[in-house]
Amino acid sequence: MGGDTAPESEVAGAVHASRMLAARNVEHTIELVGDRTRISAALQRTSDPPSTITITDASDVVTMHDDPASVVRTKPDSSLIKGLEVLRSGNADAFISAGNTGAVLSAATLLLGRIRGVARPTIGAFFPTAGSRPCLVLDVGANAEVKPQFLYEFAVMGSLYAELVGGIERPRVGLLNIGEEPTKGTDVVRQAHQLLARNGVNFIGNVEGRDIFGGKADVVVCDGFTGNVVLKFAESIMPMLKAVLLRYSERSLLSKLAVALVAPVLRRMLADFDYQKYGGVPLLGVRGIVIIGHGKSTPLAIANMIIRAWEMHRIRLNERIEESLASAHSSPTLEQA
Amino acid sequence: MGGDTAPESEVAGAVHASRMLAARNVEHTIELVGDRTRISAALQRTSDPPSTITITDASDVVTMHDDPASVVRTKPDSSLIKGLEVLRSGNADAFISAGNTGAVLSAATLLLGRIRGVARPTIGAFFPTAGSRPCLVLDVGANAEVKPQFLYEFAVMGSLYAELVGGIERPRVGLLNIGEEPTKGTDVVRQAHQLLARNGVNFIGNVEGRDIFGGKADVVVCDGFTGNVVLKFAESIMPMLKAVLLRYSERSLLSKLAVALVAPVLRRMLADFDYQKYGGVPLLGVRGIVIIGHGKSTPLAIANMIIRAWEMHRIRLNERIEESLASAHSSPTLEQA
Repeated sequence: MGGDTAPESEVAGAVHASRMLAARNVEHTIELVGDRTRISAALQRTSDPPSTITITDASDVVTMHDDPASVVRTKPDSSLIKGLEVLRSGNADAFISAGNTGAVLSAATLLLGRIRGVARPTIGAFFPTAGSRPCLVLDVGANAEVKPQFLYEFAVMGSLYAELVGGIERPRVGLLNIGEEPTKGTDVVRQAHQLLARNGVNFIGNVEGRDIFGGKADVVVCDGFTGNVVLKFAESIMPMLKAVLLRYSERSLLSKLAVALVAPVLRRMLADFDYQKYGGVPLLGVRGIVIIGHGKSTPLAIANMIIRAWEMHRIRLNERIEESLASAHSSPTLEQA
Repeated sequence: MGGDTAPESEVAGAVHASRMLAARNVEHTIELVGDRTRISAALQRTSDPPSTITITDASDVVTMHDDPASVVRTKPDSSLIKGLEVLRSGNADAFISAGNTGAVLSAATLLLGRIRGVARPTIGAFFPTAGSRPCLVLDVGANAEVKPQFLYEFAVMGSLYAELVGGIERPRVGLLNIGEEPTKGTDVVRQAHQLLARNGVNFIGNVEGRDIFGGKADVVVCDGFTGNVVLKFAESIMPMLKAVLLRYSERSLLSKLAVALVAPVLRRMLADFDYQKYGGVPLLGVRGIVIIGHGKSTPLAIANMIIRAWEMHRIRLNERIEESLASAHSSPTLEQA
C-alpha cells in the first residue's frame, strides 16, 4: 500500500506475475497485504482474477514521509509490517514492496534478523554499462559508515546474487577506490582490499569511479555514503542532458529534429537506472527474501519483482550466502581483519 | 616540463598570456622553468616572442609515473621543484603546472607550507550544471579522509574562490550528504554540518548527488574519496554516451544523421569538465598561488591558467583566506568541534 500508485499497480502486477508463474507450471500463492476493500475492487476490475491471489487485510500504510526507524513501533497495522510478519511466520517465502525503502530496510532487519555471518544488510543498485550487462553497486545507502568486514560481506552477497540470479559466471568483483594501487584510499578500504584478495570472491582489485559505466566489474562494493552519492548523481544525468538538449533544440528546426531522434535513445540507455527493468533491488543479508521496488513501480515492474523473488527463493540464495560466509569465516586469513 | 605536450603548449600559452596581460597594461614577467635549449627553440619558433618571458633552466622532469610523495627528495632539479622554489623565494607571485597533479600537491605543501589556519590543502574540480554557472566541488582527491574542521576549511576556501575569482556574490555552499536532514550521514559530516551552519559561509545545508548537476550550490564540499569517485564517474559519462550513440548510429542512415547532429552538443556540454575552459584548478590552502592544469593542457588552457593565477594574486586570495579563517577561529562556536 505504500507505493505511489498502490494498490492498482500492485494488483495488476500480481495478476500478471501469477499468469507468468502458471505458464511455467510453478505452484504458488500471491498474498496481497493491505486495504481489503480497495484491493478487492482493483482485483474485480481485472478480467478473470487468478485464484492464486489472496488478500490479508492491513488497515494502515507506511508513507514516504514516515521515519524509517520507528515504523515497527508506530505502524504495527501497516501493510509493510503485516507483510513482513507473514514472511517471518513462515507463511510466505518472499516479500516485495514498492514502499518507503528506508522503512523496509529498517523493519525487515528488525523483524527478520540477519543471516548468520552477516553484520550488516545492504541494498544495491544496478548501473547500466558500456558493456552488455549491468553493474551491481552495493551499498547505496543502507550503511553510511562501514568496516572492512562489511565490505567483504557485501562482496560475497553481491557476487552470489550476480551469479545465481543474474546468471553471470564468476562475477568480477571490484572495490571502489580512488586509485588502482592496493595502498590507495582510506584505512577501511585498504583493509577491505586485503580481505577481498584472500577470500572467496573473484576479486579484480580496486576500481575507480569511471569503471562503473566502463563495465570493468559485475559487482562493485563501497560504503553506503559514496554509493548513495554516485547513485543520485547518476540519476541526475538524464535531467541534465534533457536541459541541455532542450536549449539546443530551440535553436533551429534541424536541431529540434536531431534531438527528437536521439532523445529516445538516451532515454532508453538511462532507463536502465529504472527499477522496472531489473524488477527492484534485493535487500541482501536479512533472514528472508525481500525485494524493494521504486515507489513509481509499474505493474510490469511489480510482476518482475515477484518473479525475481521467486527465483531468489528457488535457488536458496540466503542459504548459499550463509554457507559462503561460514566457509570464509572458518578460513584463518579472515581472522586477521 | 611535465605536461604531455611540454614545452610547446606551455611556451605558446605563455606568449598568448603575455600579450593578453600587456593589452590590459599589466606589468608582468613570465618565467618558464625547464630545459633551456628546448624552451628557447620553442620561443624562437613563435613570431616576435615578448621580452617579458624569461627562462630558468631545470635539467630534470617529474613524469606522470613518479611517486608524488618523494619528488622533492628524488628530483630536486626538476622543473616542478625548481619552479616551486622560485615561488617560495618570493621571486614569483604564482606558479602553474600541467604536470603530475599529486606531485604538485605534495611538493607544494612540503615546500610552501600551509596558509595559517588551514589544516589541509585541497584541490577542487568544476562540474557543469543545468544552470548557468559551474559548481566547484572540493575536495576531489587530496584528502581521502577528512575531519569536520577540514570540510569547514574547504567551504571557506571554495567560497572565497567562487566569490573573488568566479565573481559570484554570496556563493551558495552545500555539504554533500545522503539526505537533506542535518542528522543524515556519517559522524564527520554531521559535525561539519553544525560547523558550517554557525560560521562565515552562505551555507545552504546538505546537498545530494543529484544537486551537483542540478546547480543547487556554487560550492560543494565533501571528503576527497567521495569527490574523487564522483569526478571520475562524471568523466566517464561522455565515453558511455559515445558507446551508446555509436551502436545506435549503426542502425540506419537516419540515426547516423541524428547522432552526427547531436554529438557535438553533448560533447560541448561535457567539455565543461575540461580544464581548458576554466584554466586549471587551484590548489587551495598552500602558502602561495598554485594552479594545476590537465596534462593535455592546450596553449589556450595554459594562457587561461596564467591569467587566472594573476587574478588570484591580484585579489590577494590567500590573505583573504587567512583573514577569514582567523575570524572564524576566534569565534567561540568553532571550538566545539
